Amino acid sequence: MPHLFTAARARPDPVKRIADPTVRRLSLYLRFLEEFEGAGRTTISSGELAQSGHTTPAQVRKDLSSFGSFGKRGLGYGTHDLVAHIRQILGLDRTWRLVVVGAGRMGSAIAQFPGFRDRGFHVVGIFDLDPRRIGQTLAGVTIADVCHLEADVQRLRADIAVLALPPAAAQSIATRLAQAGVHALLDFSTAPLTVPAGVTVRRMDLAMELEVLSFALTNR
Amino acid sequence: MPHLFTAARARPDPVKRIADPTVRRLSLYLRFLEEFEGAGRTTISSGELAQSGHTTPAQVRKDLSSFGSFGKRGLGYGTHDLVAHIRQILGLDRTWRLVVVGAGRMGSAIAQFPGFRDRGFHVVGIFDLDPRRIGQTLAGVTIADVCHLEADVQRLRADIAVLALPPAAAQSIATRLAQAGVHALLDFSTAPLTVPAGVTVRRMDLAMELEVLSFALTNR
Repeated sequence: MPHLFTAARARPDPVKRIADPTVRRLSLYLRFLEEFEGAGRTTISSGELAQSGHTTPAQVRKDLSSFGSFGKRGLGYGTHDLVAHIRQILGLDRTWRLVVVGAGRMGSAIAQFPGFRDRGFHVVGIFDLDPRRIGQTLAGVTIADVCHLEADVQRLRADIAVLALPPAAAQSIATRLAQAGVHALLDFSTAPLTVPAGVTVRRMDLAMELEVLSFALTNR
Repeated sequence: MPHLFTAARARPDPVKRIADPTVRRLSLYLRFLEEFEGAGRTTISSGELAQSGHTTPAQVRKDLSSFGSFGKRGLGYGTHDLVAHIRQILGLDRTWRLVVVGAGRMGSAIAQFPGFRDRGFHVVGIFDLDPRRIGQTLAGVTIADVCHLEADVQRLRADIAVLALPPAAAQSIATRLAQAGVHALLDFSTAPLTVPAGVTVRRMDLAMELEVLSFALTNR
């Protein structure tokens, strides 16, 4: 499906091999920067960004310098330029087309989650296999029968799929999505998914996060 | 609130300074081990665990050896003992009492999420400020008025709180929960929370995960 990634391919300087935690920090800096920009601040120091992100000024400078030099010593970063640059690095200078597979409680909540659209993530399709759900409307999108998933995600030009379904169903759906050209999955199913090279999976594993908290409480 | 953490304090050998990614891998190993145990397997090799967890046998051995020696060279690990040991390390040899603050779509989905109770996480309280929600029942729990939050979480002996509320409300709720003795928060609000030392926060930031996927798609 070459048309899906035209925007990405047209980029002159793809940023490669940035570690996951760095990407997450950039995402966090971006929120603070947008808040600062909204409040009319034209410059911001690495110290201020560090404080917002619970990290150190050195870490902030390191994170930002991997993508080129923005700041001026003693003057800080220009808020507006930095916002634009981080948005470009993260690929947020465009919109992304999202489908949600599974329209149960969690899938419905995700499809209607506030804040996605503002950040450029548009829910364009919702799928389920339950005839009682198919045909209903969520967030302006009619729930479609998952049996036509491949054709539908291609027609919808979906970039990212959210899996909100039982673990037993997740692998087969992930495989079908990958074959249909969806290269990014956000998985709430907690199933260990095997996907072809080139497909990125992010796990949203609520039980695992609770277990991390259980560990923290146990070993305080 | 000393009574909240009696179980943790009574442990003879608290496991300290284990990095977060290790804890997450242990949680993952545990799921596979439980599956293997359910299928009647009495031993498992580090290679098999590595394959399930998308990691290397050396990493598995390193992760498990930090907690003492379990495996026997050439024989693998005894499934039953390893399950019991990891459950103990993670603090899963007991139940944890969960409250959910915010009974909107996401809070309701979380409160009714399948798989929590099986893993020892019991939802004992749900709170909201909307009079239309207060008094309704979700997963057998009556939604209570958040105005009595402190007294209620103490009465309910809550260990962990899930925040499923708008970012603007999250900090004040987190502060009130911490003051009432809740030392572990799972935060869906995406607000940058400041909490007292000794309180652990795990962020479930859906928009951030989508931004990580956006980065991956952009820089393939």
